[in-house]
Formats: sequence, C-alpha cells, structure tokens
Amino acid sequence: MTDNIFAEDYGRLIVQGADQPGIVSRVSTVLAEHGANVVALDQTTSDPSGGQFFQRTVFHLPELSVKREALADALDQSLVDDLGLSYRLVEAKRQKRVAILVSKSDHCMLDLLWRQRRGELRMTVPMVISNHPDLGDDVRQFNIPFFHVPVEKNNKEAAEKEHLNLLKGNVDMVVLARYMQVLSGDFLGEIGVPVINIHHSFLPAFMGAGPYQRAKDRGVKLIGATAHYVTEDLDEGPIIEQDVIRVSHRESTREFQRRGADVERSVLSKAVSWHCDDRVIRDGNTTVVF
Amino acid sequence: MTDNIFAEDYGRLIVQGADQPGIVSRVSTVLAEHGANVVALDQTTSDPSGGQFFQRTVFHLPELSVKREALADALDQSLVDDLGLSYRLVEAKRQKRVAILVSKSDHCMLDLLWRQRRGELRMTVPMVISNHPDLGDDVRQFNIPFFHVPVEKNNKEAAEKEHLNLLKGNVDMVVLARYMQVLSGDFLGEIGVPVINIHHSFLPAFMGAGPYQRAKDRGVKLIGATAHYVTEDLDEGPIIEQDVIRVSHRESTREFQRRGADVERSVLSKAVSWHCDDRVIRDGNTTVVF
Amino acid sequence: MTDNIFAEDYGRLIVQGADQPGIVSRVSTVLAEHGANVVALDQTTSDPSGGQFFQRTVFHLPELSVKREALADALDQSLVDDLGLSYRLVEAKRQKRVAILVSKSDHCMLDLLWRQRRGELRMTVPMVISNHPDLGDDVRQFNIPFFHVPVEKNNKEAAEKEHLNLLKGNVDMVVLARYMQVLSGDFLGEIGVPVINIHHSFLPAFMGAGPYQRAKDRGVKLIGATAHYVTEDLDEGPIIEQDVIRVSHRESTREFQRRGADVERSVLSKAVSWHCDDRVIRDGNTTVVF
Amino acid sequence: MTDNIFAEDYGRLIVQGADQPGIVSRVSTVLAEHGANVVALDQTTSDPSGGQFFQRTVFHLPELSVKREALADALDQSLVDDLGLSYRLVEAKRQKRVAILVSKSDHCMLDLLWRQRRGELRMTVPMVISNHPDLGDDVRQFNIPFFHVPVEKNNKEAAEKEHLNLLKGNVDMVVLARYMQVLSGDFLGEIGVPVINIHHSFLPAFMGAGPYQRAKDRGVKLIGATAHYVTEDLDEGPIIEQDVIRVSHRESTREFQRRGADVERSVLSKAVSWHCDDRVIRDGNTTVVF
Repeated sequence: MTDNIFAEDYGRLIVQGADQPGIVSRVSTVLAEHGANVVALDQTTSDPSGGQFFQRTVFHLPELSVKREALADALDQSLVDDLGLSYRLVEAKRQKRVAILVSKSDHCMLDLLWRQRRGELRMTVPMVISNHPDLGDDVRQFNIPFFHVPVEKNNKEAAEKEHLNLLKGNVDMVVLARYMQVLSGDFLGEIGVPVINIHHSFLPAFMGAGPYQRAKDRGVKLIGATAHYVTEDLDEGPIIEQDVIRVSHRESTREFQRRGADVERSVLSKAVSWHCDDRVIRDGNTTVVF
Repeated sequence: MTDNIFAEDYGRLIVQGADQPGIVSRVSTVLAEHGANVVALDQTTSDPSGGQFFQRTVFHLPELSVKREALADALDQSLVDDLGLSYRLVEAKRQKRVAILVSKSDHCMLDLLWRQRRGELRMTVPMVISNHPDLGDDVRQFNIPFFHVPVEKNNKEAAEKEHLNLLKGNVDMVVLARYMQVLSGDFLGEIGVPVINIHHSFLPAFMGAGPYQRAKDRGVKLIGATAHYVTEDLDEGPIIEQDVIRVSHRESTREFQRRGADVERSVLSKAVSWHCDDRVIRDGNTTVVF
Repeated sequence: MTDNIFAEDYGRLIVQGADQPGIVSRVSTVLAEHGANVVALDQTTSDPSGGQFFQRTVFHLPELSVKREALADALDQSLVDDLGLSYRLVEAKRQKRVAILVSKSDHCMLDLLWRQRRGELRMTVPMVISNHPDLGDDVRQFNIPFFHVPVEKNNKEAAEKEHLNLLKGNVDMVVLARYMQVLSGDFLGEIGVPVINIHHSFLPAFMGAGPYQRAKDRGVKLIGATAHYVTEDLDEGPIIEQDVIRVSHRESTREFQRRGADVERSVLSKAVSWHCDDRVIRDGNTTVVF
Repeated sequence: MTDNIFAEDYGRLIVQGADQPGIVSRVSTVLAEHGANVVALDQTTSDPSGGQFFQRTVFHLPELSVKREALADALDQSLVDDLGLSYRLVEAKRQKRVAILVSKSDHCMLDLLWRQRRGELRMTVPMVISNHPDLGDDVRQFNIPFFHVPVEKNNKEAAEKEHLNLLKGNVDMVVLARYMQVLSGDFLGEIGVPVINIHHSFLPAFMGAGPYQRAKDRGVKLIGATAHYVTEDLDEGPIIEQDVIRVSHRESTREFQRRGADVERSVLSKAVSWHCDDRVIRDGNTTVVF
C-alpha cells in the first residue's frame, strides 16, 4: 500500500448498520457511478443472519472536494434511505485535530508528539493541556501550545469548564496520555468528540487505581496496557488495542511501571493512529478495527 | 464469523490480476445478479498504480451447486474476457484432500491429524506416506492409510514414481510434515498440486540443513519456523507463515530442537488451515494471506 | 545445558526462607564439603532487606543415593537449625508420578501424554481419571490406565472419595487438564500433593465460567490461558504461567475457543514441565519460576 | 529486586573461564570472607564437562570503595592464579560513559536520550557525534554536546581520526544508533571500548544494506532488528538482543521501515541497558545475557 492514500482526492467511506444482502454491491455501485475507484476495502459482519455490518472503503475520486456533496447525496439515498444504514465520508487529506491531556508522566505524550513530527500519525496537535506545569517545556519544544489547568478536588467543575472552553470547536478528538483525572459524564457529553484513554493494565483485569501493584501482588506473569474509548463507566469503554509483556518474580513493582510504560506508549500510539485513519468503528461496547 | 461459511451453498471466489479501476464493483455486480450475497470480502492491491489486485469473497448462494456453472460463465466473461483477470470459484463444502509426507519426527504430522479429527482443519487426509515405517501405528490409529515408501540414494527416481502413483488424482495438496527428502523439479511438475513444506528456521536465515545447530553457533536470541510452498529452489518458495520463540544461552541445540518443534507444528498447521480455506494467494514468490 | 542433569547422581536443592546475609555462601560450602559440584544455580530475593530468599541449585554428586542422607543431615543443621530456612533435596533421576484429571476436551491431555512419550516431560503418568468415558481409547493407546469416575451433583462427596482411593500414595502431583469439576477444600487437604489447573483466561480477568464468551462480549483484543496451583479459592491460586494470543472482531466465540485451546495446552505443558523439574517455588500466593 | 543495587556500596563481579568443580563455592567464600553479602547471582555453563563457565554476582559490601583493592587482590589469587579464570569487578554507582554516533534517523538516539533522562539507563552521555548536522538541536535540548563530523568517501581516515580524538579516554562504550557508516578495523582496534550497533533486520537474515526492501521482496511475515557488538566483519558480531514484529502483504517497504523503527529503538535500548548493568558477557562470537 503506498502513501498516496492520504493525499488529495483520496476518500474514506465508513458504512455500518443491520446486515442484509447486497450492501457491498450497493456501495460499489454508488462509488463507481460517481467515478470513484476502490483502492482498499475491508468488510465484516458480526453474524451473517441478523448481525451488524461494517465496511471501510478507501477510494480515489478526482476532484473529490468538488464532487463530495453529490456523492454524499447519493449515499444518503442509497444507504440511509433505502437500506437504513449509517455512513461517514471523510477526505483523507483532512487530518484530525487532536488535543492531548496529560499529568506528570511524559512517555505517552512524547511518543505521540515524536510520531506526529515524523509524519507517522495523520493528525495535528493544536494543544496539550495538563493539570501540572511540569511538561510545559517538553511540549513547547515541538512548537505546540501548552496550557496548565490545575484540577483540585473542590474546583473540578470549574476546571472541566476551562477545558471545554479551550477544546470545543478546536479539536476532533481528545487523547488522555496518562491523564490522572476522571472526566465527568457531563464533560463527555458536552465535549462531543471521541476521547481515547490508555489504562495501564490488561483490561478487564486490574480496573481502577494501582494496577501494577495489584499485578505484582497477584503474581501475574504478563502485564499489559489497554487503549479504549472513554465512557462514563471508568475503564469499561470499548477497547481499541491491548498488548502485554512478560514479567517475572525478578522485577519489582517499580520495574513493572518502567517496562509497562513501553507497552502503554506503544498501545496508545497505535490506537490513536488507527482512529485518525478511521480504522476503528464502534460496535456497542466493542470495536471493529480494520 | 459463524461456522456456516463452510456449509452447503457457501462459495469462495478468488480473483487476481493486473489492478485497474472498477474490479470490486464488477465482482459485486456479477455476484448480485446471480443472487449471491457477499458474506465476507478481503481485497488488496500491491500498488494502486500498476500493481496486482487480489480479492477473496465469501458468498452465500442458494442452490450453489446447481447455479455454479452459470455463475462461472458470467465470471469468465466479466473478469477474464473483459478485464483480463483470473479467478477460482470454490464450493466451501468441498474439503480439500491432503496427503501428508513424513519421515521419523511425529510432531507436525500428529498436530495436523489431531486438528483434522477435531474439525479444525477443513480437509480430508486420504493417506500418509513415509520413507520410514516408524509412524505407521500412530497414523492408523486415526483410521488413515499409511504407506511406507523407502527412499534410498540410488532409487530416488523410482521412489518418486511410486509416490506419484499413490498421489496423482487422489489429492488436492501435499504437505511435507518434516519430510527429510528433497523433491525433484520433475516430481513437482508432475504432481500438479500445491506442496507445502515446513522449514525449521526463520527463512531466509539458516536455509538448508542443520538450522538449529547453526542458530546455536550464531548465538541468535530467537529461533523460528517457516511454512512455504515448495518450488525447485530449496527453501526459497513463497512464504505462507512464520513464527519465532525466544531462546537464550541456557538452552542447548537439543533444547532448541524440542522447543522449535512447537513452533514448527503451530506454523505448519496454520499454513495448511489457511490454504484449505483458500486464504492464501500466490503473488510471484510471495503470498497474500487473507 | 546438556541433558545429563536429569541423570543418575544429579540432584536439586531448593532453599527458601527469610533473607539474610551469607545464605548463598553457606549452601555452596555445605555442597562442596560433601563433594558436590554446582552445575546450575538460580537465586533471587523478593527484597534485599526483610524479603524472602529463594535458591535452586543443580549439582552433581557421585553416589548421590548413598550420600544423600549425610548431605541432608548437614543441610538440616546448616540451613534449618542455624538459619531457620527450609529446603527440599531431590534426586533428578526420580521422576514425579502425575495423575491427569480430564473431562471431554482432549487437547490438554493429549499434549501432556504426547510430550511425556517423547521424553520432554520428566514424569510418569500412572493414571488418567475422567468424569466422562469419552477419552478412554485415546488414553489407553498410550498404555496408560484410564478410570471413569462419574461425578453427579448429589454424589460429589462419593466421587471425591473414589478419586482419593485411586490417587493417594500413587501420585506426586495431580493435573487438571480441562477437568470441569470444582474440587472441594476437603479433597485438596486430603490429597496432600500439589494440584495444577489450566484456566482458559488470562487471570485475574474472566475468573469462573464461560471466559471465552465473556472475552468476546467485552471486546478484548487478546485472549489467554493461565496455569496455577489449585487452592480453595477458585481461580485464585498461585500463577505458574500465562500466555495470550491476538484476536479480532473477525472471530466468533467458537473460534476463540479453538485458538485458545492452543494456548491452554502450551501453557499447561510448560507449567507441568517446570513443576516436574522443581523450577517452581511457591511464595505465598505467587510463584518464583527459575 | 529494589533499585538499591545501583547505589553506593553495591558491586558486580563477573567471572568467566574454563568450567571446573567448585567455582561457585570459591567465589562465595571470597566474597563472604571480605564481608560482602550476595544480593543476586546468575550462573551458567556452556557444557558441564569441558565448557565455559560464567557468573554474575551482585553483592553489598559496606565501604566498597575502600575495600575494593583488598577484594581484588583476593580474587586475583583465588580465581586467576588458582583457577585460571578471568573476572571484572565493578562498582555499581559508577555509571558507564556512552557516546552515541548517529546519522539522520532520530528514533534510536531519541529513545536512548529520553530513557537516560528518565533514569532508566544507568549511563551518562558525554557526547553525540553525527556525520550530518540535522539532529544537533534535538541533542542539545537534552543538554548534551553535539559534534558534527562529516564523513566523505575520500576523507574517511581523517574522519575516524577526528572521532578518536573526541572519544578516546572520554567514553566507556560507543553506540551506533543508526549510524550509516562502516567503522574500519583500525578504528575498532584503536578505540578500545565496546561498540554496539543496531541492524535493521533479524540477523543473520538480510545482512548488509537495504534489509527492509529485501524483506519485502522475499515476502517474509515477520521483520526484526538486532543489536550486536561490532567486529570487523560487518553484521557478524556477537548478538545481544533481537526482536520481531508481524507484517503482511498490506504493508509497503516504507511501512516496514516505520514499524521496524519501533523494534530498532526497543532492541537497542535493551541491549545498551543490559551492557551498562554488566549483564552481557561475550563468549566467542555469542553472548551470555543474565
């Protein structure tokens, strides 16, 4: 696969809904009728009879920006009106705007900023927000604005309001890169864009606080990390990616934290990358990752 | 994905050839016109401009056996005549007939026979052939015929002839499950079905004889195994699957062999499974595995 | 490491207890004074100040069987009396006698029996016991006695008694190779030998019944298996080994079961192998695995 | 294991040589006689009869700096004179001085510098040298000197001389963090400290230039990276660490490079970390890694 697919005139069409005969054919036909050539297609169904259908199509369409509206009209009719499906139509050249929220640990944030600078992540980072001032210098070396928004026990609501002021309308996604504050349901409802979190355990094991210490106490032989969409239920949102590494009796909890940090940053970077490329589709409380 | 896709009235269509706009749409249209519903679709191209196109489609078509010929006629016209592509059309219910060739090591063969008995591999095993008599009892406990065909240095040609007599027309694939004899180009040409081999190294490292000893001497930290289609060039055929495990200074060459055997049987079983389900498409000296 | 270390005149000494300066030196001295040569030594401490000390030493001592008693007397004095440690002294040539309990799934049991036949597991298998008759033929093909002991809801106590009659005095360990019955605390107390179980999830995630279905519902991206010593608390005993494989939305719960079976048999075989070689030392509810 | 073992009064003793009965005991005795307490001990032998013996011991000895000379004298007599072994005695608090050589790719270098800053690598970095000016700013943000030493085809000897002027006496190790120049045998002889390189393939597969392209052409299903000590024979020195990741037909050579970069930085950081902690012992053209 070449890198062209992130350039001008490349589009992505995400279709999902109740499975029924003929969806793939209908999508192909609409795209072909508008002059679009399918470059890559992934499709799955949770169950051939009565399940959910998911399709991600990458296509090339000369003058996509101009023709986009006409294509959308046709999709509205063919997919939404006729088949009762939903879809998203995305121009590949339009990178998602991603805000990073962070506390004191730098590893996940730096990995995202490095990869963004290297061109590995198709996203822009309009701002980093932290409840601590510590990482300001690191962030600004990437020419990215850093905002310090303290969160204290009795000012939580005010802090969330300040976050909303900074974020709303400015970003397409929020990433919690080891941000050690719980976001309220109100905030999640208000923000209106997906929020991805990295949890430092192999969920659903060790939900909540102190997972490395609990992993040490339980004597597990693998530790891991999980990237998931944030929902009101802490650590229970749809999982995007997970990975593990092997540990042994030789390692202290501190060593678990150090080595686990490598898994955390790797897992989070993958999840963010896939989300930015519209590879992740939510299916109830699970995800399809193409 | 349910297991229905291996039942009556499910088909698989494998399409490949020079990439060009509209192939996905054309395939969808032909299938839809004949009443087939796409259940799963995988598609890729080696390069959007000037590359090779590959598509594997699983579909459901009531009375497939009856309608197969008409569908094939339409595909001949749409895909072969119009677009210059090639295709294979397979009824899922028709399991491949697989002969296993083996020498003295039982691990790869037993793993295949166990999995076949458990229903994990969609294949039948009409025979096992060995150049040694040792594994006869093990094979026959699975109610599978075992043929002992000795291969000595000066009777190689005669032995290959005997193999051909046993195999030709009776099998759709041959699996070399640690069969320690090199097959001649003549044999491969004559047999006319794919032959899969397991090599006990991570190719292209340690091609040829004694890979574990050479891995030990070189001091590698991972050892592996590779399943590939057999071509005239020993250990150089298209790779289907590879895997590795971690080793250390603590382990002797003997221990490499023991632990490597686990990788060999796992890798070979996967490769055979994928081939049986028509998931592997050859692309020159490489493979696309859907 | 050669295979000699499982032969005549090789011994294993396992030492554990409150850490304190000089243990390694003391052990070395006692062994040297009795003419034993250290072949391999693994040692760890949970915390240099106030932690637990663990050491496994493999040594060669000509006429070990004859000199064993004198060596034990010296260890009693040096390690137990003087330092308050405990130890186990094992002759490597004496293989552990292992009973396998199984229900209907054959994969874990077959893997153990096959590895034992190949000489990969240093153990003998005096019997296999099942609450179902299904696997009798498979077991007896390995020339191993198979006993069918049905367990019904209202005869559980009687069944456990029958198990005890068969097992007590005849085995050094019991392996639950997908045995789908919970053993009572009374039984565990009575049997007096270690019991190893394989649980089909990555503990502590998905304890209890139906882990694959729950993994599917939760949308995890990795599934796994855990081998642990059995205690009264179901699925909460000390973990010996765990491993995972990657899964995706494409796979059904049934497919999780199939692919998970590969992890189960691999993890259980490793745990049993390490236990047989006295590589596993219990440390409260965790294990040290050398 | 706590982090104390890198502090004042902790020492490391590395012993190697022809295996013979009683080495472990002799080492323990010498240490005990000087008041040292063994905190961790790893030991192995390539073959109990006629092989090479290796032992790494971490010990605590109050006033180590003062007592070090007396301990060394005793080791000279006990191990060198009596048993013909060689040893290294290291104070844990003395961090190794490591120079990094780099070209244009930043990923390996940044990972090392960042881990060093976090305290994960027990080393200091007195300088980074590059044959290109590009990474100067990145290096200096870590408060580390950056020297630009161009290497052109006809000034290679002069450039190596300049390198030697900068390095000799100032560093205990050199790390080639994707440094795209071959070092001459003369340079390696002159520099007199270990040099570690990261090669972007799973050695011995794809030695030399362009490994990702060759991996793509060969159609391998895993790509990897290898950290090794540099010898005169390019890519043939003793391997310290290797790892791999899974790839597929979907990925271009460019994508191999991107994803491979993650393996490169991870493998190199591990190798450097282990070397800094004296965990790596050379054994001919292989390594023992404790």
